[in-house]
Amino acid sequence: MIEIPDLPTFDDVLVAAARIAAAVHRTPVHTCRTLDSMTGSRLFLKCENLQKVGAFKARGACNAVLSLSDTEASHGVATHSSGNHAAALAFAAGLRGIPAHVVMPSNSRAVKKAAVTGYGARVLECEPTLAARESMLAEVVRNTGAVFIHPYNDPRVMAGQGTAALELLAEAGPLDAILTPVGGGGLLSGTCLAAAGVSPGTAVWGTEPAGADDAFRSLQQGRLVPSLDPRTIADGLRTSLGERTFAIIRQHVRGIVTVSEQSIVMAMRLVWERAKLIIEPSSAVPLAALLERKLDLGGQRVGIILSGGNVDLEELPWATKTD
Amino acid sequence: MIEIPDLPTFDDVLVAAARIAAAVHRTPVHTCRTLDSMTGSRLFLKCENLQKVGAFKARGACNAVLSLSDTEASHGVATHSSGNHAAALAFAAGLRGIPAHVVMPSNSRAVKKAAVTGYGARVLECEPTLAARESMLAEVVRNTGAVFIHPYNDPRVMAGQGTAALELLAEAGPLDAILTPVGGGGLLSGTCLAAAGVSPGTAVWGTEPAGADDAFRSLQQGRLVPSLDPRTIADGLRTSLGERTFAIIRQHVRGIVTVSEQSIVMAMRLVWERAKLIIEPSSAVPLAALLERKLDLGGQRVGIILSGGNVDLEELPWATKTD
Repeated sequence: MIEIPDLPTFDDVLVAAARIAAAVHRTPVHTCRTLDSMTGSRLFLKCENLQKVGAFKARGACNAVLSLSDTEASHGVATHSSGNHAAALAFAAGLRGIPAHVVMPSNSRAVKKAAVTGYGARVLECEPTLAARESMLAEVVRNTGAVFIHPYNDPRVMAGQGTAALELLAEAGPLDAILTPVGGGGLLSGTCLAAAGVSPGTAVWGTEPAGADDAFRSLQQGRLVPSLDPRTIADGLRTSLGERTFAIIRQHVRGIVTVSEQSIVMAMRLVWERAKLIIEPSSAVPLAALLERKLDLGGQRVGIILSGGNVDLEELPWATKTD
Repeated sequence: MIEIPDLPTFDDVLVAAARIAAAVHRTPVHTCRTLDSMTGSRLFLKCENLQKVGAFKARGACNAVLSLSDTEASHGVATHSSGNHAAALAFAAGLRGIPAHVVMPSNSRAVKKAAVTGYGARVLECEPTLAARESMLAEVVRNTGAVFIHPYNDPRVMAGQGTAALELLAEAGPLDAILTPVGGGGLLSGTCLAAAGVSPGTAVWGTEPAGADDAFRSLQQGRLVPSLDPRTIADGLRTSLGERTFAIIRQHVRGIVTVSEQSIVMAMRLVWERAKLIIEPSSAVPLAALLERKLDLGGQRVGIILSGGNVDLEELPWATKTD
C-alpha cells in the first residue's frame, strides 16, 4: 500500500477551528418537524448555506490562506475552479490582503465570474478543458509565485472543512450519524476527522448523485475510480475524489450511498418549502438519501451539512412546469 | 373621539409570550453583511418565516386559542381567511384539540386549502366576495357555536403578534428602529406595544405597498380609510386596518412609508440570494423601504420582522425572464 503524504489529522481540525474563528460564521443549526416526520429521523441541519460566500468552502480556503507564512503569502494564492472554492479563496485572500488568481473556464456563468471578481480576485479565462485549466494555472503560478490552493485535495482545506462538523456536534449534542454530500471529498474527509476525534460513535456517511458516483465506486473497488462523464444537477459534486481525501474517507466513513436526480430535486424543493432555506442542489443530496430510504436511520439523531446556497434563481429545477 | 373597547396593552403581550412559549418557535435573528452595506444600516432580521406554519400568524392564533376558557373552546373556533391566519388558526386549534372552521373563497389556491386541511381544520368554500365570506362565517358560528377569531382586529391576536418584537429586542440588543410590514395591522400594533413597553426609544415604522396604502392614508387623515381596490404582489398586505389595530398604531407608530412593487420584488430576491432565506413578498416590504431610501436610518441598528415564508415556488415574481 502506497503511503499518502500530508494527511490532516483531528488536531489539524482543532487548530483550523481556532484559526478561522474570526473569519467565518459559526452557522446556526436548524430543525424542521416536517422533514423529521417525512424521514423518521430527528434531523439537525447545519446551515453552511448561511456561511460566508454562501458555502462551507469559506472554511477550508480561510484555513489554507491564514496558515501561510508571510513569505509564502506575499505572492498571493491561485486556484482553478468555477464554483464555490473560487469565491471562497478570493474572499480569504481579500481578508489577508493578498492577491488571488483564479483560473475559470471561459464558459463559466457571468454571475460566477462577477462573484469572484467582486471579492477582489483576478479571473483568468481558459478553454473549458482540464488540460487548459492546468496549464494556465501552472503558468500563473510560475509568473506570479502564488501558492496553489487545491479545492479539496489539500490538507489545510480538508482540516478547515472539518470545522463545520465540529460545530454541529457541539451544538446538536450526541448524533447517531452525520451525512454530507461528496464531490471531491473535502467536506466528507474533514467531517470524518472531526467525528472520529469528538464522537467516534457517530457514523459518517457520504451521499452522492448516482450520475457522479466515483466515491461509491472508489470505496467499493478500493482504489480511486474517477467519474469520466459526471452528470448531475448537483454541480458542486461533479468532481472526483483526490488521493488525500480518499485516504481519509476509506479509513473512517461508514459508507457511501447514491441517489437519483429526481430525489435531489424533490429534497431541494422540500428544504425550500418546509425549512424555508435556500440551498443549492448539492446540499439536498443527504436528505435525498433519507427520503429514498437508502439509509436506515429511523428514530436516530442525524446531522446533515447543508453545504451551500448558491443557486441561480432564474433556473430552478422545477421551473419547467407543464401546466 | 370615540373610545375603542378591548385594546390590548403591553401586559397582554407579556402574558401572551408566556402563554404561547411552548406552542411556537423562538425564531432566530439573522444578520447579513451584504444587506447592511446596501442599506447603510445594521440589520437584525427576525425570522418569522421559520415560525410554525411559516408565518408570525402562529403567535396571534395560538394566543387567542389558548386564552379561551374550556367552555368557550368546547365548540371550536372559526375564521375567514385565505392566507396565513387560516393555517395558523387550524394549527392552534389542533394543538388544543378543538375543531377549527375556516371559510375560504372558492378561488383560493388548492395548495392553501391543502395546508389548512392538513392541520386538521374544516374548510368551507364560499363565493369570493366579502359579503359571501361574512354571511357564511356567521352561519358557521351560529350552527356550531364556534368562537370567531378575527385575523387581526382582535386584542388576543394583536398581543400575540407583539411577542415577535419582544424576542427581537431581547436578542438583538438596543435597536434604533423596528420595521414591520402592515396589512391589517396586527403585527404592527403588537410591535408598537412591545417596543413601547420594553424600549420606548425604539422608533416603530410601518411599511406598506403603495398599491395598498390604507395605513398611510389612514394615519394621514386621522381616520380609517380602507383600500377599496388593493393591488400588490404582497398578498398578505391587501387587507385594511381595523379599528383596534388603527387605535394602537396611531398612538405609537413613528410613521408609515410606502414602497413600489418593483422594490418589493428586488428586496425579496435580495433576501433569497444574499440571506439565503425564503420569504414571501410581504416580508420584503421593510427592506424595500430602506433600499428606496424612504427612511433615513443610516448607521442605525434596525430590526426587521421577516413576517413569513409561504410562497408558491412555481410562480416567482422574477420567473418571467426575457432571455
